[in-house]
Amino acid sequence: MRKVKVDSSMSTFYGLIDACTRAARSVLCVGLDPDPARIPEGYPATVEGTLAFLGDVILATRDVCAAYKPNAAFFEAMGPGGFDSMREVAKMVRRHAPHAMLIADAKRGDIGNTARMYAKVFFEDMGYDVVTVSPYMGMDTIEPFASFDGKGAFVLCLTSNPGAADFEEQGDPPTYVRVTQAVAALAEDEKLGLVVGATRDPAAIERIRRLAPTVPFLIPGVGEQGGDLEAVINAAGSNVLINVSRSIMYAGKTRGDVPDASRRAALSFADRMRV
Amino acid sequence: MRKVKVDSSMSTFYGLIDACTRAARSVLCVGLDPDPARIPEGYPATVEGTLAFLGDVILATRDVCAAYKPNAAFFEAMGPGGFDSMREVAKMVRRHAPHAMLIADAKRGDIGNTARMYAKVFFEDMGYDVVTVSPYMGMDTIEPFASFDGKGAFVLCLTSNPGAADFEEQGDPPTYVRVTQAVAALAEDEKLGLVVGATRDPAAIERIRRLAPTVPFLIPGVGEQGGDLEAVINAAGSNVLINVSRSIMYAGKTRGDVPDASRRAALSFADRMRV
Repeated sequence: MRKVKVDSSMSTFYGLIDACTRAARSVLCVGLDPDPARIPEGYPATVEGTLAFLGDVILATRDVCAAYKPNAAFFEAMGPGGFDSMREVAKMVRRHAPHAMLIADAKRGDIGNTARMYAKVFFEDMGYDVVTVSPYMGMDTIEPFASFDGKGAFVLCLTSNPGAADFEEQGDPPTYVRVTQAVAALAEDEKLGLVVGATRDPAAIERIRRLAPTVPFLIPGVGEQGGDLEAVINAAGSNVLINVSRSIMYAGKTRGDVPDASRRAALSFADRMRV
Repeated sequence: MRKVKVDSSMSTFYGLIDACTRAARSVLCVGLDPDPARIPEGYPATVEGTLAFLGDVILATRDVCAAYKPNAAFFEAMGPGGFDSMREVAKMVRRHAPHAMLIADAKRGDIGNTARMYAKVFFEDMGYDVVTVSPYMGMDTIEPFASFDGKGAFVLCLTSNPGAADFEEQGDPPTYVRVTQAVAALAEDEKLGLVVGATRDPAAIERIRRLAPTVPFLIPGVGEQGGDLEAVINAAGSNVLINVSRSIMYAGKTRGDVPDASRRAALSFADRMRV
Protein backbone atom coordinates (compact mmCIF):
# COMPACT_ATOMS: atom_id res chain seq x y z
CA MET A 1 0.00 0.00 0.00
CA ARG A 2 2.89 2.35 0.63
CA LYS A 3 3.87 4.40 -2.38
CA VAL A 4 7.51 3.73 -3.24
CA LYS A 5 9.48 6.37 -5.08
CA VAL A 6 12.89 5.47 -6.42
CA ASP A 7 14.39 8.86 -7.18
CA SER A 8 13.27 11.15 -4.42
CA SER A 9 12.11 9.06 -1.48
CA MET A 10 13.84 11.38 0.98
CA SER A 11 12.80 14.66 -0.56
CA THR A 12 9.06 14.64 0.08
CA PHE A 13 6.96 14.34 3.21
CA TYR A 14 5.72 10.92 1.99
CA GLY A 15 9.30 9.83 1.40
CA LEU A 16 10.27 10.95 4.89
CA ILE A 17 7.55 8.79 6.45
CA ASP A 18 8.94 5.81 4.60
CA ALA A 19 12.49 6.57 5.69
CA CYS A 20 11.76 7.23 9.37
CA THR A 21 9.60 4.15 9.87
CA ARG A 22 12.22 1.93 8.18
CA ALA A 23 14.95 3.40 10.40
CA ALA A 24 12.99 2.77 13.60
CA ARG A 25 11.49 -0.49 12.31
CA SER A 26 8.21 0.71 13.78
CA VAL A 27 5.47 3.24 13.11
CA LEU A 28 5.58 4.57 16.67
CA CYS A 29 5.28 8.33 17.12
CA VAL A 30 5.86 9.63 20.64
CA GLY A 31 3.74 12.63 21.59
CA LEU A 32 5.46 15.17 23.82
CA ASP A 33 2.77 16.89 25.91
CA PRO A 34 4.53 18.20 29.03
CA ASP A 35 1.74 18.73 31.57
CA PRO A 36 3.16 20.51 34.65
CA ALA A 37 0.84 18.47 36.89
CA ARG A 38 2.36 15.20 35.68
CA ILE A 39 6.07 15.85 35.18
CA PRO A 40 7.94 13.24 37.26
CA GLU A 41 9.49 14.21 40.58
CA GLY A 42 13.07 15.40 40.44
CA TYR A 43 12.83 17.74 37.43
CA PRO A 44 12.76 21.46 38.30
CA ALA A 45 9.38 23.11 37.57
CA THR A 46 10.92 25.41 34.92
CA VAL A 47 11.24 25.48 31.14
CA GLU A 48 14.76 24.06 31.55
CA GLY A 49 13.53 21.28 33.84
CA THR A 50 10.83 20.37 31.34
CA LEU A 51 13.38 20.25 28.51
CA ALA A 52 15.60 17.97 30.64
CA PHE A 53 12.62 15.63 31.12
CA LEU A 54 11.81 15.61 27.40
CA GLY A 55 15.48 15.02 26.58
CA ASP A 56 15.46 11.92 28.80
CA VAL A 57 12.32 10.60 27.09
CA ILE A 58 13.80 11.19 23.63
CA LEU A 59 17.11 9.49 24.51
CA ALA A 60 15.30 6.49 25.99
CA THR A 61 13.02 5.96 23.01
CA ARG A 62 15.04 7.11 20.02
CA ASP A 63 15.94 3.77 18.47
CA VAL A 64 12.34 2.49 18.30
CA CYS A 65 10.57 5.73 17.56
CA ALA A 66 9.88 6.94 14.01
CA ALA A 67 8.59 10.40 14.92
CA TYR A 68 8.21 12.88 17.77
CA LYS A 69 5.19 15.12 18.09
CA PRO A 70 5.36 18.02 20.59
CA ASN A 71 1.93 19.61 21.15
CA ALA A 72 2.17 23.42 21.01
CA ALA A 73 -0.50 23.97 23.69
CA PHE A 74 1.64 22.45 26.42
CA PHE A 75 4.62 24.59 25.47
CA GLU A 76 2.62 27.84 25.25
CA ALA A 77 1.14 27.03 28.68
CA MET A 78 4.60 27.02 30.29
CA GLY A 79 4.52 30.84 30.27
CA PRO A 80 7.36 33.10 29.12
CA GLY A 81 9.87 31.16 27.00
CA GLY A 82 7.53 28.15 26.75
CA PHE A 83 6.50 28.47 23.12
CA ASP A 84 10.07 29.29 22.09
CA SER A 85 11.25 26.07 23.76
CA MET A 86 9.59 24.08 20.94
CA ARG A 87 12.64 25.17 18.95
CA GLU A 88 14.90 23.51 21.58
CA VAL A 89 12.85 20.32 21.43
CA ALA A 90 13.33 20.23 17.67
CA LYS A 91 17.09 20.63 18.14
CA MET A 92 17.19 17.82 20.72
CA VAL A 93 15.34 15.46 18.39
CA ARG A 94 17.69 16.29 15.49
CA ARG A 95 20.70 15.67 17.73
CA HIS A 96 19.55 12.49 19.48
CA ALA A 97 17.29 10.97 16.81
CA PRO A 98 18.36 12.30 13.41
CA HIS A 99 16.27 9.69 11.57
CA ALA A 100 13.02 10.77 13.24
CA MET A 101 10.26 12.90 11.72
CA LEU A 102 9.43 16.08 13.64
CA ILE A 103 5.73 16.90 13.83
CA ALA A 104 4.49 20.16 15.36
CA ASP A 105 1.03 19.34 16.71
CA ALA A 106 -0.48 22.79 16.47
CA LYS A 107 -3.81 22.23 14.64
CA ARG A 108 -3.52 25.64 13.01
CA GLY A 109 -5.90 26.97 10.37
CA ASP A 110 -6.40 30.54 9.16
CA ILE A 111 -6.79 32.59 5.97
CA GLY A 112 -3.98 32.53 3.41
CA ASN A 113 -1.70 35.39 4.53
CA THR A 114 -1.98 34.21 8.14
CA ALA A 115 -1.50 30.51 7.35
CA ARG A 116 1.73 31.46 5.56
CA MET A 117 2.96 32.98 8.83
CA TYR A 118 2.21 29.78 10.75
CA ALA A 119 3.96 27.69 8.07
CA LYS A 120 7.01 29.95 8.32
CA VAL A 121 7.11 29.58 12.13
CA PHE A 122 7.12 25.81 12.23
CA PHE A 123 8.98 24.96 9.01
CA GLU A 124 11.55 27.76 8.69
CA ASP A 125 12.04 29.23 12.16
CA MET A 126 11.73 26.03 14.20
CA GLY A 127 12.76 23.35 11.72
CA TYR A 128 9.79 20.97 11.94
CA ASP A 129 8.98 18.62 9.05
CA VAL A 130 5.21 18.53 9.42
CA VAL A 131 2.45 20.55 11.11
CA THR A 132 -1.04 19.35 12.04
CA VAL A 133 -3.71 21.64 10.56
CA SER A 134 -7.47 22.05 10.83
CA PRO A 135 -9.48 21.95 7.57
CA TYR A 136 -12.57 23.79 8.87
CA MET A 137 -11.95 26.99 6.84
CA GLY A 138 -11.19 25.12 3.60
CA MET A 139 -8.33 24.04 1.39
CA ASP A 140 -7.03 27.59 0.74
CA THR A 141 -6.06 27.64 4.43
CA ILE A 142 -4.09 24.38 4.03
CA GLU A 143 -2.27 25.11 0.77
CA PRO A 144 0.37 27.38 2.41
CA PHE A 145 1.54 24.35 4.42
CA ALA A 146 1.90 22.34 1.20
CA SER A 147 4.22 24.78 -0.54
CA PHE A 148 7.55 23.96 1.16
CA ASP A 149 9.99 21.41 -0.28
CA GLY A 150 10.24 18.28 1.83
CA LYS A 151 7.63 19.55 4.30
CA GLY A 152 3.95 18.78 4.75
CA ALA A 153 0.85 18.78 6.92
CA PHE A 154 -1.37 16.22 8.60
CA VAL A 155 -4.94 17.46 8.10
CA LEU A 156 -7.52 16.72 10.82
CA CYS A 157 -9.99 14.25 9.34
CA LEU A 158 -11.78 11.98 11.85
CA THR A 159 -10.43 12.70 15.32
CA SER A 160 -10.22 10.56 18.45
CA ASN A 161 -12.44 12.64 20.78
CA PRO A 162 -16.21 12.05 21.31
CA GLY A 163 -16.99 15.47 19.76
CA ALA A 164 -16.00 14.04 16.35
CA ALA A 165 -19.70 13.15 16.10
CA ASP A 166 -20.79 16.83 16.20
CA PHE A 167 -19.54 18.06 12.83
CA GLU A 168 -16.91 15.66 11.38
CA GLU A 169 -19.42 12.81 11.11
CA GLN A 170 -22.39 14.96 9.99
CA GLY A 171 -23.64 15.32 6.41
CA ASP A 172 -23.95 12.90 3.52
CA PRO A 173 -21.19 12.28 2.73
CA PRO A 174 -19.97 13.26 6.20
CA THR A 175 -17.50 16.12 6.52
CA TYR A 176 -14.58 13.76 7.22
CA VAL A 177 -15.21 12.03 3.87
CA ARG A 178 -15.17 15.39 2.05
CA VAL A 179 -11.88 16.22 3.77
CA THR A 180 -10.48 12.83 2.79
CA GLN A 181 -11.48 13.36 -0.85
CA ALA A 182 -9.96 16.85 -0.96
CA VAL A 183 -6.65 15.58 0.47
CA ALA A 184 -6.62 12.46 -1.73
CA ALA A 185 -7.06 14.67 -4.80
CA LEU A 186 -3.68 16.26 -3.98
CA ALA A 187 -1.86 13.02 -3.05
CA GLU A 188 0.43 13.18 -6.10
CA ASP A 189 2.15 16.20 -4.56
CA GLU A 190 3.05 14.10 -1.49
CA LYS A 191 2.50 17.04 0.87
CA LEU A 192 -0.64 16.17 2.85
CA GLY A 193 -1.54 13.39 5.26
CA LEU A 194 -4.65 12.78 7.41
CA VAL A 195 -5.27 12.57 11.15
CA VAL A 196 -7.48 9.54 11.87
CA GLY A 197 -8.34 8.65 15.48
CA ALA A 198 -7.72 5.11 16.76
CA THR A 199 -10.89 5.28 18.87
CA ARG A 200 -13.18 5.43 15.83
CA ASP A 201 -15.23 2.67 14.19
CA PRO A 202 -12.84 0.52 12.10
CA ALA A 203 -15.34 0.65 9.22
CA ALA A 204 -14.90 4.44 9.06
CA ILE A 205 -11.12 4.08 9.09
CA GLU A 206 -11.32 1.51 6.26
CA ARG A 207 -13.51 3.91 4.29
CA ILE A 208 -10.90 6.68 4.63
CA ARG A 209 -8.13 4.28 3.54
CA ARG A 210 -10.11 3.18 0.46
CA LEU A 211 -10.60 6.82 -0.55
CA ALA A 212 -6.96 7.79 0.12
CA PRO A 213 -4.84 4.70 -0.55
CA THR A 214 -1.47 6.49 -0.80
CA VAL A 215 -1.99 9.14 1.88
CA PRO A 216 -0.13 8.71 5.21
CA PHE A 217 -2.23 8.66 8.37
CA LEU A 218 -1.25 10.05 11.75
CA ILE A 219 -3.24 8.00 14.26
CA PRO A 220 -3.71 9.34 17.80
CA GLY A 221 -5.90 7.81 20.48
CA VAL A 222 -3.89 4.73 21.49
CA GLY A 223 -2.87 4.43 25.16
CA GLU A 224 -4.77 6.54 27.72
CA GLN A 225 -7.43 7.43 25.16
CA GLY A 226 -8.24 3.73 24.82
CA GLY A 227 -8.09 3.04 21.06
CA ASP A 228 -7.67 -0.63 20.05
CA LEU A 229 -4.21 -0.84 18.46
CA GLU A 230 -4.67 -4.10 16.55
CA ALA A 231 -8.08 -3.09 15.18
CA VAL A 232 -6.76 0.22 13.90
CA ILE A 233 -3.72 -1.39 12.26
CA ASN A 234 -6.00 -3.82 10.46
CA ALA A 235 -8.27 -1.04 9.28
CA ALA A 236 -5.63 1.54 8.30
CA GLY A 237 -3.02 -0.78 6.78
CA SER A 238 0.52 0.43 6.34
CA ASN A 239 1.66 4.00 5.62
CA VAL A 240 0.78 5.23 9.09
CA LEU A 241 2.35 6.75 12.17
CA ILE A 242 0.67 5.74 15.42
CA ASN A 243 0.97 8.23 18.24
CA VAL A 244 1.23 7.42 21.94
CA SER A 245 1.77 10.33 24.33
CA ARG A 246 0.94 9.97 28.01
CA SER A 247 1.42 6.18 28.35
CA ILE A 248 5.07 6.60 27.32
CA MET A 249 5.93 10.07 28.70
CA TYR A 250 4.51 9.45 32.13
CA ALA A 251 5.51 5.80 32.53
CA GLY A 252 8.16 6.84 35.08
CA LYS A 253 7.12 8.49 38.34
CA THR A 254 10.52 9.96 39.32
CA ARG A 255 13.48 11.34 37.39
CA GLY A 256 15.44 8.18 38.19
CA ASP A 257 12.68 5.96 36.75
CA VAL A 258 12.10 7.89 33.53
CA PRO A 259 14.76 6.36 31.25
CA ASP A 260 13.88 2.72 31.99
CA ALA A 261 10.14 3.16 32.34
CA SER A 262 9.61 5.22 29.21
CA ARG A 263 11.89 2.88 27.26
CA ARG A 264 9.97 -0.21 28.39
CA ALA A 265 6.66 1.45 27.52
CA ALA A 266 7.93 2.54 24.09
CA LEU A 267 9.33 -0.91 23.33
CA SER A 268 6.10 -2.64 24.25
CA PHE A 269 4.18 -0.36 21.85
CA ALA A 270 6.83 -0.50 19.12
CA ASP A 271 6.83 -4.31 19.18
CA ARG A 272 3.17 -4.21 18.22
CA MET A 273 3.85 -1.64 15.47
CA ARG A 274 6.68 -3.25 13.52
CA VAL A 275 7.25 -2.62 9.82
CA MET B 1 -31.73 42.50 19.25
CA ARG B 2 -29.06 42.95 21.90
CA LYS B 3 -29.76 41.11 25.12
CA VAL B 4 -29.76 43.58 28.00
CA LYS B 5 -28.92 42.33 31.46
CA VAL B 6 -29.51 44.62 34.41
CA ASP B 7 -27.59 42.89 37.15
CA SER B 8 -24.46 41.50 35.57
CA SER B 9 -23.83 43.27 32.29
CA MET B 10 -20.10 43.47 33.01
CA SER B 11 -19.58 39.96 34.32
CA THR B 12 -20.13 37.88 31.18
CA PHE B 13 -18.59 37.90 27.74
CA TYR B 14 -21.95 39.08 26.31
CA GLY B 15 -22.08 41.86 28.90
CA LEU B 16 -18.55 42.91 27.97
CA ILE B 17 -19.50 43.30 24.31
CA ASP B 18 -22.31 45.57 25.32
CA ALA B 19 -20.06 47.64 27.59
CA CYS B 20 -17.14 48.02 25.17
CA THR B 21 -19.29 49.02 22.18
CA ARG B 22 -21.16 51.59 24.28
CA ALA B 23 -17.88 53.04 25.56
CA ALA B 24 -16.46 53.40 22.03
CA ARG B 25 -19.85 54.31 20.51
CA SER B 26 -18.92 51.95 17.69
CA VAL B 27 -18.60 48.24 16.96
CA LEU B 28 -15.13 48.66 15.45
CA CYS B 29 -12.56 46.00 16.32
CA VAL B 30 -9.01 46.71 15.17
CA GLY B 31 -7.04 43.64 14.15
CA LEU B 32 -3.34 43.72 15.03
CA ASP B 33 -1.49 41.59 12.45
CA PRO B 34 2.10 42.88 12.40
CA ASP B 35 3.52 41.69 9.08
CA PRO B 36 7.27 42.45 8.99
CA ALA B 37 7.00 43.22 5.27
CA ARG B 38 4.50 46.02 5.91
CA ILE B 39 5.59 47.69 9.16
CA PRO B 40 6.01 51.41 8.40
CA GLU B 41 9.47 52.89 7.95
CA GLY B 42 11.08 54.21 11.11
CA TYR B 43 10.27 51.35 13.49
CA PRO B 44 13.20 49.02 14.26
CA ALA B 45 12.75 45.50 12.80
CA THR B 46 12.65 43.92 16.27
CA VAL B 47 10.01 42.70 18.70
CA GLU B 48 10.40 46.02 20.57
CA GLY B 49 10.03 48.02 17.35
CA THR B 50 6.87 46.10 16.49
CA LEU B 51 5.44 46.76 19.94
CA ALA B 52 6.19 50.48 19.53
CA PHE B 53 4.27 50.44 16.23
CA LEU B 54 1.30 48.62 17.77
CA GLY B 55 1.35 51.01 20.74
CA ASP B 56 1.06 53.97 18.34
CA VAL B 57 -1.88 52.33 16.54
CA ILE B 58 -3.65 51.61 19.85
CA LEU B 59 -3.13 55.17 21.16
CA ALA B 60 -4.40 56.67 17.90
CA THR B 61 -7.56 54.56 17.76
CA ARG B 62 -8.49 53.94 21.38
CA ASP B 63 -11.45 56.29 21.75
CA VAL B 64 -13.36 54.90 18.73
CA CYS B 65 -12.39 51.27 19.00
CA ALA B 66 -14.43 48.72 21.00
CA ALA B 67 -11.98 45.82 20.76
CA TYR B 68 -8.44 44.88 19.72
CA LYS B 69 -7.66 41.55 18.11
CA PRO B 70 -3.99 40.51 17.83
CA ASN B 71 -3.53 37.47 15.56
CA ALA B 72 -1.21 34.91 17.17
CA ALA B 73 0.37 33.83 13.86
CA PHE B 74 2.03 37.19 13.30
CA PHE B 75 3.47 37.20 16.81
CA GLU B 76 4.78 33.61 16.62
CA ALA B 77 6.37 34.50 13.28
CA MET B 78 8.52 37.20 14.88
CA GLY B 79 10.84 34.49 16.20
CA PRO B 80 12.19 34.26 19.76
CA GLY B 81 10.12 36.39 22.13
CA GLY B 82 7.43 36.98 19.50
CA PHE B 83 4.68 34.81 20.94
CA ASP B 84 5.41 36.10 24.45
CA SER B 85 4.98 39.67 23.20
CA MET B 86 1.20 39.02 22.90
CA ARG B 87 1.26 39.46 26.68
CA GLU B 88 2.78 42.95 26.23
CA VAL B 89 0.13 43.85 23.67
CA ALA B 90 -2.55 42.88 26.17
CA LYS B 91 -0.93 45.10 28.79
CA MET B 92 -0.74 48.06 26.36
CA VAL B 93 -4.43 47.71 25.52
CA ARG B 94 -5.39 47.57 29.21
CA ARG B 95 -3.30 50.65 29.91
CA HIS B 96 -4.30 52.79 26.92
CA ALA B 97 -7.83 51.50 26.25
CA PRO B 98 -9.20 50.03 29.49
CA HIS B 99 -12.76 49.88 28.09
CA ALA B 100 -11.76 47.71 25.11
CA MET B 101 -12.32 43.99 24.72
CA LEU B 102 -9.16 41.94 24.14
CA ILE B 103 -9.53 39.13 21.60
CA ALA B 104 -6.74 36.61 20.98
CA ASP B 105 -7.21 35.54 17.36
CA ALA B 106 -5.67 32.09 17.62
CA LYS B 107 -8.29 29.76 16.04
CA ARG B 108 -7.28 26.98 18.43
CA GLY B 109 -9.07 23.63 18.68
CA ASP B 110 -7.86 20.41 20.29
CA ILE B 111 -9.04 17.58 22.58
CA GLY B 112 -10.18 18.46 26.12
CA ASN B 113 -6.96 18.28 28.13
CA THR B 114 -5.12 20.22 25.42
CA ALA B 115 -7.86 22.82 24.92
CA ARG B 116 -7.70 23.52 28.66
CA MET B 117 -4.00 24.39 28.20
CA TYR B 118 -4.79 26.84 25.40
CA ALA B 119 -7.56 28.43 27.50
CA LYS B 120 -5.13 28.83 30.40
CA VAL B 121 -2.55 30.50 28.13
CA PHE B 122 -4.80 33.19 26.73
CA PHE B 123 -7.18 33.79 29.66
CA GLU B 124 -4.97 33.32 32.73
CA ASP B 125 -1.37 33.83 31.60
CA MET B 126 -1.94 36.59 29.04
CA GLY B 127 -5.14 38.23 30.30
CA TYR B 128 -7.27 38.12 27.13
CA ASP B 129 -11.08 38.23 27.37
CA VAL B 130 -11.90 36.08 24.36
CA VAL B 131 -10.19 33.56 22.08
CA THR B 132 -11.20 32.56 18.56
CA VAL B 133 -11.62 28.78 18.27
CA SER B 134 -12.21 26.26 15.49
CA PRO B 135 -15.21 23.93 15.88
CA TYR B 136 -13.98 21.18 13.53
CA MET B 137 -13.31 18.61 16.28
CA GLY B 138 -16.63 19.23 18.06
CA MET B 139 -18.15 20.97 21.04
CA ASP B 140 -16.06 19.08 23.63
CA THR B 141 -13.05 20.95 22.24
CA ILE B 142 -14.83 24.31 22.74
CA GLU B 143 -16.26 23.78 26.24
CA PRO B 144 -12.92 24.40 28.02
CA PHE B 145 -12.99 27.97 26.63
CA ALA B 146 -16.50 28.45 28.05
CA SER B 147 -15.63 27.57 31.63
CA PHE B 148 -13.95 30.81 32.79
CA ASP B 149 -15.94 33.59 34.51
CA GLY B 150 -16.25 36.68 32.36
CA LYS B 151 -14.36 35.06 29.44
CA GLY B 152 -15.53 33.47 26.21
CA ALA B 153 -14.80 32.31 22.70
CA PHE B 154 -15.77 33.32 19.19
CA VAL B 155 -16.36 30.06 17.30
CA LEU B 156 -15.53 29.95 13.57
CA CYS B 157 -18.83 29.60 11.72
CA LEU B 158 -18.89 30.99 8.15
CA THR B 159 -15.54 32.57 7.39
CA SER B 160 -14.50 35.32 4.98
CA ASN B 161 -12.11 33.30 2.75
CA PRO B 162 -13.12 31.56 -0.52
CA GLY B 163 -12.37 28.15 1.03
CA ALA B 164 -15.48 28.53 3.20
CA ALA B 165 -17.23 26.77 0.32
CA ASP B 166 -15.18 23.58 0.77
CA PHE B 167 -16.55 22.28 4.09
CA GLU B 168 -18.36 25.07 6.00
CA GLU B 169 -21.03 25.41 3.28
CA GLN B 170 -21.35 21.66 2.51
CA GLY B 171 -24.09 19.37 3.80
CA ASP B 172 -27.82 19.83 4.39
CA PRO B 173 -28.00 21.69 6.64
CA PRO B 174 -24.51 22.99 5.89
CA THR B 175 -21.82 22.65 8.54
CA TYR B 176 -21.97 26.36 9.43
CA VAL B 177 -25.67 25.99 10.28
CA ARG B 178 -24.91 23.01 12.55
CA VAL B 179 -22.22 25.08 14.27
CA THR B 180 -24.67 27.99 14.66
CA GLN B 181 -27.28 25.69 16.21
CA ALA B 182 -24.78 24.16 18.64
CA VAL B 183 -23.60 27.60 19.79
CA ALA B 184 -27.14 29.03 19.96
CA ALA B 185 -28.15 26.11 22.21
CA LEU B 186 -25.63 27.39 24.78
CA ALA B 187 -26.46 31.11 24.41
CA GLU B 188 -27.95 31.35 27.92
CA ASP B 189 -24.48 30.83 29.37
CA GLU B 190 -23.27 33.96 27.51
CA LYS B 191 -19.86 32.40 26.78
CA LEU B 192 -19.82 31.76 23.01
CA GLY B 193 -20.03 34.01 19.96
CA LEU B 194 -19.69 33.27 16.23
CA VAL B 195 -17.24 34.37 13.53
CA VAL B 196 -19.20 35.38 10.42
CA GLY B 197 -17.34 36.75 7.39
CA ALA B 198 -18.41 40.05 5.85
CA THR B 199 -17.65 38.73 2.37
CA ARG B 200 -20.42 36.12 2.49
CA ASP B 201 -23.91 36.21 0.95
CA PRO B 202 -26.10 38.45 3.16
CA ALA B 203 -28.83 35.77 3.03
CA ALA B 204 -26.48 33.34 4.79
CA ILE B 205 -25.63 35.95 7.43
CA GLU B 206 -29.36 36.60 7.98
CA ARG B 207 -29.92 32.87 8.38
CA ILE B 208 -27.24 32.68 11.08
CA ARG B 209 -28.76 35.69 12.89
CA ARG B 210 -32.24 34.13 12.82
CA LEU B 211 -30.88 30.92 14.35
CA ALA B 212 -28.77 32.72 16.98
CA PRO B 213 -30.60 35.98 17.81
CA THR B 214 -28.75 36.72 21.08
CA VAL B 215 -25.26 35.50 20.08
CA PRO B 216 -22.57 38.14 19.37
CA PHE B 217 -20.86 37.99 15.97
CA LEU B 218 -17.24 38.83 15.24
CA ILE B 219 -17.22 39.93 11.60
CA PRO B 220 -13.93 39.97 9.70
CA GLY B 221 -13.51 40.63 6.00
CA VAL B 222 -14.12 44.39 5.78
CA GLY B 223 -11.34 46.56 4.31
CA GLU B 224 -8.68 44.81 2.19
CA GLN B 225 -10.74 41.62 2.04
CA GLY B 226 -13.51 43.60 0.33
CA GLY B 227 -16.66 42.82 2.35
CA ASP B 228 -19.56 45.28 1.95
CA LEU B 229 -19.90 47.01 5.33
CA GLU B 230 -23.44 48.33 4.94
CA ALA B 231 -24.78 45.02 3.59
CA VAL B 232 -23.29 43.06 6.46
CA ILE B 233 -24.65 45.48 9.08
CA ASN B 234 -28.11 45.13 7.57
CA ALA B 235 -27.88 41.35 7.57
CA ALA B 236 -26.27 40.84 10.99
CA GLY B 237 -28.10 43.53 12.96
CA SER B 238 -26.68 44.74 16.24
CA ASN B 239 -24.68 42.69 18.77
CA VAL B 240 -21.61 42.51 16.55
CA LEU B 241 -17.98 43.53 16.46
CA ILE B 242 -16.70 44.34 12.98
CA ASN B 243 -12.99 43.80 12.46
CA VAL B 244 -10.70 45.84 10.23
CA SER B 245 -7.00 45.01 10.29
CA ARG B 246 -4.76 46.06 7.42
CA SER B 247 -6.73 49.12 6.24
CA ILE B 248 -6.20 50.73 9.66
CA MET B 249 -2.81 49.33 10.74
CA TYR B 250 -1.05 50.10 7.48
CA ALA B 251 -2.74 53.42 6.70
CA GLY B 252 0.51 55.25 7.54
CA LYS B 253 3.65 54.61 5.48
CA THR B 254 6.20 56.05 7.94
CA ARG B 255 6.45 56.23 11.72
CA GLY B 256 5.63 59.92 11.58
CA ASP B 257 2.43 59.25 9.58
CA VAL B 258 1.10 56.41 11.70
CA PRO B 259 -0.78 58.32 14.43
CA ASP B 260 -2.74 60.57 12.06
CA ALA B 261 -3.23 58.08 9.27
CA SER B 262 -4.43 55.17 11.42
CA ARG B 263 -6.67 57.54 13.40
CA ARG B 264 -8.27 58.90 10.22
CA ALA B 265 -8.80 55.38 8.88
CA ALA B 266 -10.29 54.17 12.19
CA LEU B 267 -12.61 57.20 12.43
CA SER B 268 -13.89 56.72 8.91
CA PHE B 269 -14.77 53.09 9.68
CA ALA B 270 -16.14 53.86 13.17
CA ASP B 271 -18.45 56.54 11.79
CA ARG B 272 -20.11 53.86 9.66
CA MET B 273 -20.34 51.49 12.66
CA ARG B 274 -22.00 53.68 15.29
CA VAL B 275 -24.19 52.26 18.07
